[in-house]
Amino acid sequence: MARILTGIQSSNIPHLGNILGAILPAIELTHLNNNEAFYFIADLHSLSSIKNAEFIRQSTYAVSATWIAFGLDYNKHYFYRQSRIPEVCELTWYLNCFTPYPMLANAHSFKEKSKQLSDVNAGLFIYPVLMAADILLYDADIVPVGKDQVQHLEMTRDIASIFNRTLQKDVFVLPQAKIKKEVMIVPGIDGQKMSKSYNNFINIFLPEKELKKVIMSIITDSTPLKEPKHPDTCNVFKLYALLADKNDVETMRQNYLKGNYGYGQAKTALCELILDKFKEQRKIFSELMTNTEKIEQILVLGEKKTRAIAQQKLQQIRAILGYS
Amino acid sequence: MARILTGIQSSNIPHLGNILGAILPAIELTHLNNNEAFYFIADLHSLSSIKNAEFIRQSTYAVSATWIAFGLDYNKHYFYRQSRIPEVCELTWYLNCFTPYPMLANAHSFKEKSKQLSDVNAGLFIYPVLMAADILLYDADIVPVGKDQVQHLEMTRDIASIFNRTLQKDVFVLPQAKIKKEVMIVPGIDGQKMSKSYNNFINIFLPEKELKKVIMSIITDSTPLKEPKHPDTCNVFKLYALLADKNDVETMRQNYLKGNYGYGQAKTALCELILDKFKEQRKIFSELMTNTEKIEQILVLGEKKTRAIAQQKLQQIRAILGYS
Repeated sequence: MARILTGIQSSNIPHLGNILGAILPAIELTHLNNNEAFYFIADLHSLSSIKNAEFIRQSTYAVSATWIAFGLDYNKHYFYRQSRIPEVCELTWYLNCFTPYPMLANAHSFKEKSKQLSDVNAGLFIYPVLMAADILLYDADIVPVGKDQVQHLEMTRDIASIFNRTLQKDVFVLPQAKIKKEVMIVPGIDGQKMSKSYNNFINIFLPEKELKKVIMSIITDSTPLKEPKHPDTCNVFKLYALLADKNDVETMRQNYLKGNYGYGQAKTALCELILDKFKEQRKIFSELMTNTEKIEQILVLGEKKTRAIAQQKLQQIRAILGYS
Repeated sequence: MARILTGIQSSNIPHLGNILGAILPAIELTHLNNNEAFYFIADLHSLSSIKNAEFIRQSTYAVSATWIAFGLDYNKHYFYRQSRIPEVCELTWYLNCFTPYPMLANAHSFKEKSKQLSDVNAGLFIYPVLMAADILLYDADIVPVGKDQVQHLEMTRDIASIFNRTLQKDVFVLPQAKIKKEVMIVPGIDGQKMSKSYNNFINIFLPEKELKKVIMSIITDSTPLKEPKHPDTCNVFKLYALLADKNDVETMRQNYLKGNYGYGQAKTALCELILDKFKEQRKIFSELMTNTEKIEQILVLGEKKTRAIAQQKLQQIRAILGYS
């Protein structure tokens, strides 16, 4: 059994790309080896880029509802809002005092931004220390990270080592990075990688009519109806292939190749597939979003369990530092 | 009535220089205009330079005992350990997200240290934001500062303004600096300014024998006993003049000038004066230090009162940011 920890961005409503590329693999991971998962809405991190209370609140609900709809076992695991565990801010201060300034100044993520320093706030600069606190507070063993986060996890390990060495106690567990395999590339409706910033995403939770409209707007070429089409360069087919059963994918491939099969038909098939495949998740999401009280209950449950662990650990840290 | 706020270093036992130059004027200030004072042991700040639990604990007691001995009215005012109000760490994170990075990088205090950047930790860099949180959490109106802290208070005002402007709400009171008048210069036993770092200080709480030894070690010139002496260049006389009644000072001045008065006599007079003048404070200090439970009680009382205010304010801030 290992403790896995992952922060979840609260800055947008998860789209099909997020679901296939991040959420489903993360939920998969909770089933392996009887792992214990700490999955949290990183709403404190969000503040370094977004200053909009209502947006943060609504995003938090939509993100939570998505994870719940896709089957995260919130009873077994730890599912919580970062902001409800204020112990993480206190630990951030302690860790700041053990973090060499140049370590932060030399971080890739900061260097990239430092061309426009006037736009950078201290929260963005200190971000890797908050991330370290998020991880070290729970003695997490494994942190799944993308390539862009490998350095930050190295910093977490360095900060933990400096702390342990300075206090001559094994206070913190040094977490291991689990580098995510090349994540699935999900094309957006324009063929580029699906992304909120490109505004080319499919929100699978849209009401049927609106969803259909989005699917119908997927960009295709203008091969006439009767002619054969290239499945492997078609955005509609690519999306269908990511979601459908092998046999259904093969059937559509043959339809493309033999001609007399229009993009409209393919789009209708894709739309029906999404509605059918995510029927249960759409229902749960919609119920939760019309009754956010239920989301609150689930998060509060997670926060109570998580905070108990955080408080115990922080108590230990305080004692070692002379604050108890 | 105004709210005055002052952070008290917990990194050393206050010596005569601290008492005359800082503690007595600060206690004076609590009596003016029915002011409400927030005086706190800045033990979170200490961690950015000291990593020694036992030292922090013992210094906290010695510092607290000194303020109590010199009459800080802990029932009327707010006397607390910074580390017991973890709300200040949470507010520090929020404020970080509103603090432009260049503001911190351009602070004098940081620039001075930045020649040896490898020794600077992120706590030292972020320190002005923690200071801002200390002040803004309590809607402090007035912050007495030395000249070296004026810039930090400007930063507090800037951070508060950015926050208020961004959220379009008057969340924070903009504090006023009260620049301390040229503080009394108290000479140490070697004639330099009394300072822990010069190791030339007088700890007035020492047992009588040890105190006498320190006073006897004050450096004087070698004018023979019978000859007249210069009071105004003599370290013993200078210290005596800071503590004694006008008449007694004048008497000693005449003794110096007429000759046949030795430095040993002057030192004995100074030692007796300290023992007599601080008799009550020495007694209280000694009682408290042999019964630190009493200090704990006093601090915990202050912490309860202070934390209630902090929690209320933080609740308001959380709501505005979307975290409630």
